[in-house]
Amino acid sequence: MSSEKTNQSWGGRFSEPVDAFVARFTASVDFDKRLYKHDIMGSLAHAKMLTQVGVLSEPELKAIEDGLTAIQQEIEAGEFDWRVDLEDVHMNIEARLTERIGITGKKLHTGRSRNDQVATDIRLWLRDEIDQILAEITRLQEGLLGLAEAEADTVMPGFTHLQTAQPVTFGHHLMAWFEMLSRDYERLVDCRKRTNSMPLGSAALAGTTYPIDRALTCELLGFEAISGNSLDGVSDRDFAIEFCAAASIAMMHMSRFSEELVMWASAQFRFIDLPDRFCTGSSIMPQKKNPDVPELIRGKTGRVFGALVGLLTLMKGQPLAYNKDNQEDKEPLFDAADTLRDSLRAFADMVPAIKPRREFMREAALRGFSTATDLADYLVGKGLPFRDCHEIVGLAVRYGVDQEKDLAEMSLEELRQFSEHITEDVFAVLTLEGSVNARDHIGGTAPAQVRKAVARGRELIAARYSNR
Amino acid sequence: MSSEKTNQSWGGRFSEPVDAFVARFTASVDFDKRLYKHDIMGSLAHAKMLTQVGVLSEPELKAIEDGLTAIQQEIEAGEFDWRVDLEDVHMNIEARLTERIGITGKKLHTGRSRNDQVATDIRLWLRDEIDQILAEITRLQEGLLGLAEAEADTVMPGFTHLQTAQPVTFGHHLMAWFEMLSRDYERLVDCRKRTNSMPLGSAALAGTTYPIDRALTCELLGFEAISGNSLDGVSDRDFAIEFCAAASIAMMHMSRFSEELVMWASAQFRFIDLPDRFCTGSSIMPQKKNPDVPELIRGKTGRVFGALVGLLTLMKGQPLAYNKDNQEDKEPLFDAADTLRDSLRAFADMVPAIKPRREFMREAALRGFSTATDLADYLVGKGLPFRDCHEIVGLAVRYGVDQEKDLAEMSLEELRQFSEHITEDVFAVLTLEGSVNARDHIGGTAPAQVRKAVARGRELIAARYSNR
Amino acid sequence: MSSEKTNQSWGGRFSEPVDAFVARFTASVDFDKRLYKHDIMGSLAHAKMLTQVGVLSEPELKAIEDGLTAIQQEIEAGEFDWRVDLEDVHMNIEARLTERIGITGKKLHTGRSRNDQVATDIRLWLRDEIDQILAEITRLQEGLLGLAEAEADTVMPGFTHLQTAQPVTFGHHLMAWFEMLSRDYERLVDCRKRTNSMPLGSAALAGTTYPIDRALTCELLGFEAISGNSLDGVSDRDFAIEFCAAASIAMMHMSRFSEELVMWASAQFRFIDLPDRFCTGSSIMPQKKNPDVPELIRGKTGRVFGALVGLLTLMKGQPLAYNKDNQEDKEPLFDAADTLRDSLRAFADMVPAIKPRREFMREAALRGFSTATDLADYLVGKGLPFRDCHEIVGLAVRYGVDQEKDLAEMSLEELRQFSEHITEDVFAVLTLEGSVNARDHIGGTAPAQVRKAVARGRELIAARYSNR
Amino acid sequence: MSSEKTNQSWGGRFSEPVDAFVARFTASVDFDKRLYKHDIMGSLAHAKMLTQVGVLSEPELKAIEDGLTAIQQEIEAGEFDWRVDLEDVHMNIEARLTERIGITGKKLHTGRSRNDQVATDIRLWLRDEIDQILAEITRLQEGLLGLAEAEADTVMPGFTHLQTAQPVTFGHHLMAWFEMLSRDYERLVDCRKRTNSMPLGSAALAGTTYPIDRALTCELLGFEAISGNSLDGVSDRDFAIEFCAAASIAMMHMSRFSEELVMWASAQFRFIDLPDRFCTGSSIMPQKKNPDVPELIRGKTGRVFGALVGLLTLMKGQPLAYNKDNQEDKEPLFDAADTLRDSLRAFADMVPAIKPRREFMREAALRGFSTATDLADYLVGKGLPFRDCHEIVGLAVRYGVDQEKDLAEMSLEELRQFSEHITEDVFAVLTLEGSVNARDHIGGTAPAQVRKAVARGRELIAARYSNR
Repeated sequence: MSSEKTNQSWGGRFSEPVDAFVARFTASVDFDKRLYKHDIMGSLAHAKMLTQVGVLSEPELKAIEDGLTAIQQEIEAGEFDWRVDLEDVHMNIEARLTERIGITGKKLHTGRSRNDQVATDIRLWLRDEIDQILAEITRLQEGLLGLAEAEADTVMPGFTHLQTAQPVTFGHHLMAWFEMLSRDYERLVDCRKRTNSMPLGSAALAGTTYPIDRALTCELLGFEAISGNSLDGVSDRDFAIEFCAAASIAMMHMSRFSEELVMWASAQFRFIDLPDRFCTGSSIMPQKKNPDVPELIRGKTGRVFGALVGLLTLMKGQPLAYNKDNQEDKEPLFDAADTLRDSLRAFADMVPAIKPRREFMREAALRGFSTATDLADYLVGKGLPFRDCHEIVGLAVRYGVDQEKDLAEMSLEELRQFSEHITEDVFAVLTLEGSVNARDHIGGTAPAQVRKAVARGRELIAARYSNR
Repeated sequence: MSSEKTNQSWGGRFSEPVDAFVARFTASVDFDKRLYKHDIMGSLAHAKMLTQVGVLSEPELKAIEDGLTAIQQEIEAGEFDWRVDLEDVHMNIEARLTERIGITGKKLHTGRSRNDQVATDIRLWLRDEIDQILAEITRLQEGLLGLAEAEADTVMPGFTHLQTAQPVTFGHHLMAWFEMLSRDYERLVDCRKRTNSMPLGSAALAGTTYPIDRALTCELLGFEAISGNSLDGVSDRDFAIEFCAAASIAMMHMSRFSEELVMWASAQFRFIDLPDRFCTGSSIMPQKKNPDVPELIRGKTGRVFGALVGLLTLMKGQPLAYNKDNQEDKEPLFDAADTLRDSLRAFADMVPAIKPRREFMREAALRGFSTATDLADYLVGKGLPFRDCHEIVGLAVRYGVDQEKDLAEMSLEELRQFSEHITEDVFAVLTLEGSVNARDHIGGTAPAQVRKAVARGRELIAARYSNR
Repeated sequence: MSSEKTNQSWGGRFSEPVDAFVARFTASVDFDKRLYKHDIMGSLAHAKMLTQVGVLSEPELKAIEDGLTAIQQEIEAGEFDWRVDLEDVHMNIEARLTERIGITGKKLHTGRSRNDQVATDIRLWLRDEIDQILAEITRLQEGLLGLAEAEADTVMPGFTHLQTAQPVTFGHHLMAWFEMLSRDYERLVDCRKRTNSMPLGSAALAGTTYPIDRALTCELLGFEAISGNSLDGVSDRDFAIEFCAAASIAMMHMSRFSEELVMWASAQFRFIDLPDRFCTGSSIMPQKKNPDVPELIRGKTGRVFGALVGLLTLMKGQPLAYNKDNQEDKEPLFDAADTLRDSLRAFADMVPAIKPRREFMREAALRGFSTATDLADYLVGKGLPFRDCHEIVGLAVRYGVDQEKDLAEMSLEELRQFSEHITEDVFAVLTLEGSVNARDHIGGTAPAQVRKAVARGRELIAARYSNR
Repeated sequence: MSSEKTNQSWGGRFSEPVDAFVARFTASVDFDKRLYKHDIMGSLAHAKMLTQVGVLSEPELKAIEDGLTAIQQEIEAGEFDWRVDLEDVHMNIEARLTERIGITGKKLHTGRSRNDQVATDIRLWLRDEIDQILAEITRLQEGLLGLAEAEADTVMPGFTHLQTAQPVTFGHHLMAWFEMLSRDYERLVDCRKRTNSMPLGSAALAGTTYPIDRALTCELLGFEAISGNSLDGVSDRDFAIEFCAAASIAMMHMSRFSEELVMWASAQFRFIDLPDRFCTGSSIMPQKKNPDVPELIRGKTGRVFGALVGLLTLMKGQPLAYNKDNQEDKEPLFDAADTLRDSLRAFADMVPAIKPRREFMREAALRGFSTATDLADYLVGKGLPFRDCHEIVGLAVRYGVDQEKDLAEMSLEELRQFSEHITEDVFAVLTLEGSVNARDHIGGTAPAQVRKAVARGRELIAARYSNR
């Protein structure tokens, strides 16, 4: 019937029904039904508040509560009949409520509008998503701590410009990832703080004439703040953009980790093995074992960047207050949250199962003049200015390239061609262990420092648990 | 069962099955099943070619053709059982084919790989989408031509900086939109040309050892060219990015049109009425009639920009040849195509139904000193340098602002305060009709020019039909 | 000479000089010289620390301090000879130092690398920029508070979908902008916190073998934290991306304000006048007074979004640790900071000079059935369910559209056609003042609430000053 | 003086001068002076046309021509005094012209506006830039053809998922790059076509009342078309966006090439050596030779993506016709063009100097079971279905991984464990040469095909030269 007449929630002023294609084109229920739980949560709090201030009676409240609870069960049992002609999740639930409890259902919308209702729903939803994402970050970081501790002494080449630079420990490398994730965690906590502010009570744009008690609704819904301006309350989507920005940075980190895993798993590096269960094969090449999970995550980075750009574009230049454009806020936000959460989950599962191939890491570190800086530092210790030492070692390396000899493979005489300050004690600084152990300050790659960093990481995570 | 053992298309080398979450995370069938028709089309051509070159026998070809035809019917009847453990659309169809026709089904994959198969499918799919989009552009342009012709004489204020600038005709304004869409059409035609090149035969990355006849497959599938390098053939996604770029520009145009429609429908402008069937109301404000369609389209611009950014990010820095990252090419591309097509469709439906409110347009054009440039040009005609005329008219306007009089409302004496070159004949150039008619050259706003532009537009579109 | 031989800071190992075009292409001094002050600041702290731990002597420190101070004066006097062949700001300053003080200049680089040096410089620079931007936000917010207070009682139409929705106060509208800026302020404070962490001591990638005291350098430079991992320390650019994300959201807000100002200044709205000094004219249309400043700021939004996308793209998929790609971090960051600061400054200058045209605002509010919701709420007060009241008022509005009468212009009999619950007291709720005053709760548009919001805003800003 | 009074080109209507900061903030001369040559070119054609239609006299034309020629010389000699108070390149040149030739200089602006003037200038400028970029693409492609031909027989591992997939020839790999660049070339040619359309004559927005002859100006300036609508003519920036989109795809390709070069130059791959002149070193690690050029180009990708996003954002939602926002079109466009041209130039210089290390490529191809597909194809030749062969070879590879033997290293007995269809002739298909030679169809990796592809490439480029 309803497609024959104008829309039931706002049709009074209209003289012709909405075009069928337009109805589908402008409806949001296909994607916003995902908000059902938070929509009901918001309605329950709103109804309780309306009762407290005398707009609803206790029996009306009871009817609404029973109705909404039953509807939630219907939805979760897959028995709810979502109707596109009812446009969105809000009208679908309200229409069903009125079907179940009669005229009282129509009273629920007193003192609010879909504009503040949807803004409230989406914040409640995002708050929950952020909490799940924070938990996955923690789980991934715990995996890194375990692996970093086990590999605190494993030496690998450290790269800059993908050229062998200096020896580092594998544990130290993993703890670099840990640091990035700690910042992601912080950024999301900051974003959650701004997400957790309540627009409900802004009504359509100007507030409402009913004697609402926003402090009560705020408390019932666990919000930390009440939005201070109704025009802003219905139109603010900063939290969604800020979330996508934080998610983009986190995905950028994941793509960096992925890039390294893919390279390390190649036949050229062979630094790690990934368990078969995180890989897939080829339909044509029988020997292939592809690191699909990191590749796919690297690829998924783009969609989160895209969501961020989409939302920034969406809001650019919109006058106050709510415009229909804003309906487009949900899909990118949903997709960004899903992508980040699933990517973190896949990594949290996979990281503890990474098998380092220490012999190949070590062999690679032995090649490539990775201790050249140590030789320069050794010469500084003999009293030469750093820049001159750099020059001396540069010449030694050029000689080594020509002779195909690493520094540690040269004889003392060969080394002394470049500086007579070099003596027998030089060979101690040219070992991998000598090199990494010497970088023994906060942030340095020495195994002792890796262990300290792991301990600090454990404390950080313990503090998160105790703050819950 | 299949989740208990390793994957059937590539499992031989693997010692443990893929993790259940990983299987879901890396599977693409949920979205790439949309390619089923083009996948079957490609397989039919591939099978025919394999038969021609002697790899398959005629009875085998017959079995494959019957099997694939039946499968297409199953899919279209909604009876196909899509399985996530089979990863993608290709393996789902092939597995079902083998189920139906036995061992011959397994031979279909000879001489190709999923890498060239999916690259072929997606190009076939996009080619069809572009054709549908081109048809919608044409339909929208036809609507514009009709409206522009009807409104060739309607005068409205032309704006720069949203300030009244000079009178223009409404038909001329609509023909500006027409021009933008013509460029969109051209860009998509250029993109279609590069899309319509066949990667099939690239196999996994290096070509195949079978004696394939790529020219035959190319002809069967209606491709215009054969990709010249197998490594590039499996990894090239330029066409998808180029499409999203063209779609982004087109959506940018649609958002500009939308911005204008939204403003024109406001109580401040009142230049147009949109029929009720393209509007929706408010759940709280009974008087509202919101221009939802243009607002939503303006909002949808962001998601297409996001798709473009997502795809550019995806490809950035990928080494050759195929990487799993590329699986992420589909969802943004699908979404961009759907969004553009639906937005064009909504506009093509709506534009012919726009009701111009000529009286408000005219009234607005009369205000705001819109003929000031005409007065300056008039003075140039009297022999003064343009820059001096500009200064004179500027002073007259300042006087008009203070006196709240438009130029045409001033007496001759008032006007002659600013220049004695002004005489009685000035009033002819200060009328709206005088102003628009005077701009009578190609591209100008004169009604006569609008009619010529409409005629050119009709020819352009006729040429499209005859080129089909 | 130096173009004849290999580079002086790293040339030992090289057998041919860098290609001249390559030298220019890879040099950064043209843009990174902007960091000179922070580079010298970092070097002074590093030298002091090296002296404290015994690597430099007191006389060496004195020579370095004098040398760097003199160099800073040379730069600020425009007398410094920046050389592209010295690649970047760091080598330019170091080379000049060695020229001035001899061999001691070469010792300054002990225990650090350009990798940690530039990461330190850019954080010090951004910290200062953020502080300037925060000051401009505060200044703009102060302007808004003043104007909002003065316009607390001014009634204008509130819009949703750019359709007249409900009357609001102009002060309330301005306070919506205030809210957005408060979030921008908070986000930048959060970003500053993560920016203010010291990478110095990470050296090239692995830390250093010198007995450095990072806590001392940290204290000397006013950093709040020491980066915990050297690989991360040299390669982390999160702070730059996070800044660009916060700047993008802030510019998005500025573009929303601009959109409104541009519309309000149009002949159709006439809600405000902008002083001539913030406008420009047309070279051809003598009457034009264009709101250039808001238009330009709206346009500048894109470049900050572009900077954000550029930096995200830059970091995507980079393996650890430093890669040359990272040199591309500076120009987008510089541009984003400049654009945001200047845009805020322009608005902070302009906002207090906005002249509201109250009569036009009021007139617009009187049209468009802006009190329709009030009528619905009135009927709810008579005991009808909200949804039914909405329907009744919708019919009354449809009647009003046909009769060209606003609700307040209808007679009691006319109104009672739609519901017999309407009585004489209805006309009180249909006035603009009745409507706005009735929305008297936190966040509502009532003048009383605007004054409370202004008071809260004043406290917020006072707290900022006292926290300095 | 001019800062004391209102602007000379439009000040008549204004009562106060522009604020000093605003003047700087809104001026564009700092960057648009780059357009001086094309601005003068456009003015010369406009003057000639005005003379032809009788608006200017021959002596006036002569004066203008002499004046503009002298001004161009002043600019190119660095003697022109660019003034920010004159806003932009157009007013600077016009003011100087009037200074030089008196009142006639003021007449040059008859029948045009800065709106159509700047739109014309920027198209003329971009047309030239595209031509330079096309020439650099051709030069780079020529370098690739030379290298590909020389390396047509060089075998390297082909990768998918960065895992060894099948042997390919290095020449084939290089020709994949060639293909990508051919598409870039085509896209830019298509973009040039749409850029090369003349807006001059659109005047401010509506056309002009002077009897202009647009066909003449079009011919004089070498445009291929005349824009068909004045409102569109002054506001269309599609060409700039389309250019940035094409440039983004091209930079994406460059970043892919760069990624490969960086990996290939690493100690783990050692597939190539880059000459010292395209590399730089480290200030701290004396052994480093960093592939700076490809890294930097990979990094520069982001700024072009950013320019694209910036321009799309800029135009999104702008109503017709010209708005000040559009001034922001230039800097991103200039930067994108410079970045692409310089990156292509650096690669065109560098590619011919790449030194392949064939022995390491070959060695890598011998490892990693790269001929597994050949074994499967061999079994298909014995009559087994492909999917079964895949399974058999998968088991052989699993055995090889355990035994650390490649397929070619297994004895016949070992191979026959997996299928009794394997006989002595299998070893021919397991060689690298056997594998690559067998892929001998268009697009395949066989050396013979590489040579054919090079020949096709040479023809393509020859056709470009003959089309000039």
